[in-house]
Amino acid sequence: MSHVITLNAGSSSLKFGLFSLPSDDPVAICTGIVDRIGSAGATIRAKTSDGRTLGGDVADGIADHHEALNHVLDLIIQQFPAANIAAVGHRIVHGGPDHDQPILLTPESLAALDELSPFAPLHQPYNLSGVRASVERFPDAVQVACFDTAFHRSHPWVNDTFALPTEYYDKGVRRYGFHGLSYEYISGHLAKTAPLLHGGRVIVAHLGNGASMCGMIHGRSVGSSMGFSAIDGLPMGTRCGQLDPGVVLYLMDQKGMSVDEITELLYRKSGLLGLSGLSSDMRTLEKSDSGSARRAISYFNFRARRELGALAAVLGGLDAVVFTGGIGENSALVRERICVNMGWLGIELDHDANTDHARIISTPLSRVQVMVIPTNEELVIARAAARFVYPHMYETLLDKASPAAPPPADGSGPE
Amino acid sequence: MSHVITLNAGSSSLKFGLFSLPSDDPVAICTGIVDRIGSAGATIRAKTSDGRTLGGDVADGIADHHEALNHVLDLIIQQFPAANIAAVGHRIVHGGPDHDQPILLTPESLAALDELSPFAPLHQPYNLSGVRASVERFPDAVQVACFDTAFHRSHPWVNDTFALPTEYYDKGVRRYGFHGLSYEYISGHLAKTAPLLHGGRVIVAHLGNGASMCGMIHGRSVGSSMGFSAIDGLPMGTRCGQLDPGVVLYLMDQKGMSVDEITELLYRKSGLLGLSGLSSDMRTLEKSDSGSARRAISYFNFRARRELGALAAVLGGLDAVVFTGGIGENSALVRERICVNMGWLGIELDHDANTDHARIISTPLSRVQVMVIPTNEELVIARAAARFVYPHMYETLLDKASPAAPPPADGSGPE
Repeated sequence: MSHVITLNAGSSSLKFGLFSLPSDDPVAICTGIVDRIGSAGATIRAKTSDGRTLGGDVADGIADHHEALNHVLDLIIQQFPAANIAAVGHRIVHGGPDHDQPILLTPESLAALDELSPFAPLHQPYNLSGVRASVERFPDAVQVACFDTAFHRSHPWVNDTFALPTEYYDKGVRRYGFHGLSYEYISGHLAKTAPLLHGGRVIVAHLGNGASMCGMIHGRSVGSSMGFSAIDGLPMGTRCGQLDPGVVLYLMDQKGMSVDEITELLYRKSGLLGLSGLSSDMRTLEKSDSGSARRAISYFNFRARRELGALAAVLGGLDAVVFTGGIGENSALVRERICVNMGWLGIELDHDANTDHARIISTPLSRVQVMVIPTNEELVIARAAARFVYPHMYETLLDKASPAAPPPADGSGPE
Repeated sequence: MSHVITLNAGSSSLKFGLFSLPSDDPVAICTGIVDRIGSAGATIRAKTSDGRTLGGDVADGIADHHEALNHVLDLIIQQFPAANIAAVGHRIVHGGPDHDQPILLTPESLAALDELSPFAPLHQPYNLSGVRASVERFPDAVQVACFDTAFHRSHPWVNDTFALPTEYYDKGVRRYGFHGLSYEYISGHLAKTAPLLHGGRVIVAHLGNGASMCGMIHGRSVGSSMGFSAIDGLPMGTRCGQLDPGVVLYLMDQKGMSVDEITELLYRKSGLLGLSGLSSDMRTLEKSDSGSARRAISYFNFRARRELGALAAVLGGLDAVVFTGGIGENSALVRERICVNMGWLGIELDHDANTDHARIISTPLSRVQVMVIPTNEELVIARAAARFVYPHMYETLLDKASPAAPPPADGSGPE
């Protein structure tokens, strides 16, 4: 049987997965992560589907993504010597304005993706260096790019543009939206398990170390809280979320900060970490007694509630809310604070079900169904790669939901 | 009888008013505007309460605000020789984190307001130079500052802060909110004419060349679309409204633009003007057949709808929407596009009443009442000044509505 490796390279980490390709849907055999690439104390850890834990500390450290990939592949070859790697699927943060689907990576398409690095300077170069290392190691495997932006390319123009002179839009200054692999997984899951809701107006809250919300109609994205970069929208572990652009101008003009200093501030020192002064991790903050930790959680919930209302307006009402991501799947406190006092929007939370992390956490009478669905970005990548290996076997896996009528230009519906 | 002059200095304009002070409420005698200060073709125009039109082109131009003020005062003294100017009330854009009320202008308080200029470099210096010219001309009059930010100082912390390290909040990097004089007028008007709605959850849409929305409970601001600067939130005539801070970093780092160039772009070349490539004036765009004008209007409405949903979430539901400002009072098209398909929020527009610019433009059965109320910032300034001249006669005019229970920290209500 053939196998697929999935790779998801962050600035200092590399997530990976090994999937087998039976005739219906890829099956995870092993998933793991290399952490702290480039600094002391690198680790590689993985779990197998038969319950084994692999890896551990890497004594000499891991200098870069190339080296990290070699560690991953050594581990896979050692543990799964019979694996026949037919494809490698890569999560790529930025696909630009045009790519609304995964693509085959060739020298040409790779060069074109290099051109998008200015749009995501902290992520795109690492993603692409992961691709290059993988090509060296598996010259005969199919290499596939899955874009975090692709799922949002169905946005109407009003949600894609900023109110800048139109030449900026034409040159790529747009609201791209991210976390698309997670939203694609949730959309597909809803199509299978709750087709009526999938056909309706759904807000998916992907809340993790990165966080955003996506408004879907008929399973397709019509709006997102994230825009041009990965800092806009909801506050995150260390990222600020929505920020008045005048603040950036003020910090430069009046405080003499450089672009690099402000980038470092907004990406790595803000969000839950900045407000709490304590931690970027919601679990740590929930356990803390400090007032600043409580305030950081309050701000997170306040902004999520605000965005829920905004996206409901974009959708013209609401049928379901789905929580996913590390915080969305595991924090009953955050889910409760976001949903409480939302009766005006038709949300009535079932507090016991929420505490139990049940799949449906709204009451039977709640007009809006609230759900918790664990996301699975690796499976989405594996499916995309599988489709390029066995086009006929997997051709429906990536099909978009049947296209709905295009949303009106300003979200105001038929007139 | 004593009189009050109101002054509202913009970057190239100076609005003014002359009010008499009877025993109950100031009465406008004359209101006008000096336009195109500092460029060729300056004009001064005014209307009197008895229907006369005053002023015209100024042949030699008007070099600066000092000169503009002298033109205004010459006109007032010439036309109203009996006026006894007891006070001059100034609209000041920025009162900083502390001022939630008008203040008496003294050399000390004026120096303190100078310190806030870095927060509003395009407006505060002009406002304060207007004050200084007025002190020279009326050394014996009471000089009063009315702040655009003051009305929003009742915001809970979650709506005032950004998710930056807390030292930035402590140093004044906050969501101040603006257009406070307009919101104060509307709040006072509702208290008198619709006390039940005033006690409820109201969103006021101040839509003009500048535009923002304010969410009120019990007549007090609990949230606004504008934040630290006058560019955030809704798109405006030439200002961008909400913009990913990553775009500013991108324009600097990747496009080599300077702070001044980006400031010029975001304040003067964006918004309706930038998107339409045609005009910053909604009236011109509504009359245009061009697709870009239509798209600019669509974007304006889309963002307003989005913000309406967001503020409804902040308020925990909605009882009334008030449209005001040049566009809000006069564009039936914009009001309709913002309110259509908002049944999920309880809004049902009465299309005939809207076309007629009636005071109430929702249907009798609409759960949310939608109103059009012309704003009157000059009257708010005149009232503030009157209170400093005759504290006992006017003392209730500026009283805040009776304070409601403080909103919960994250807007989630009692738990």
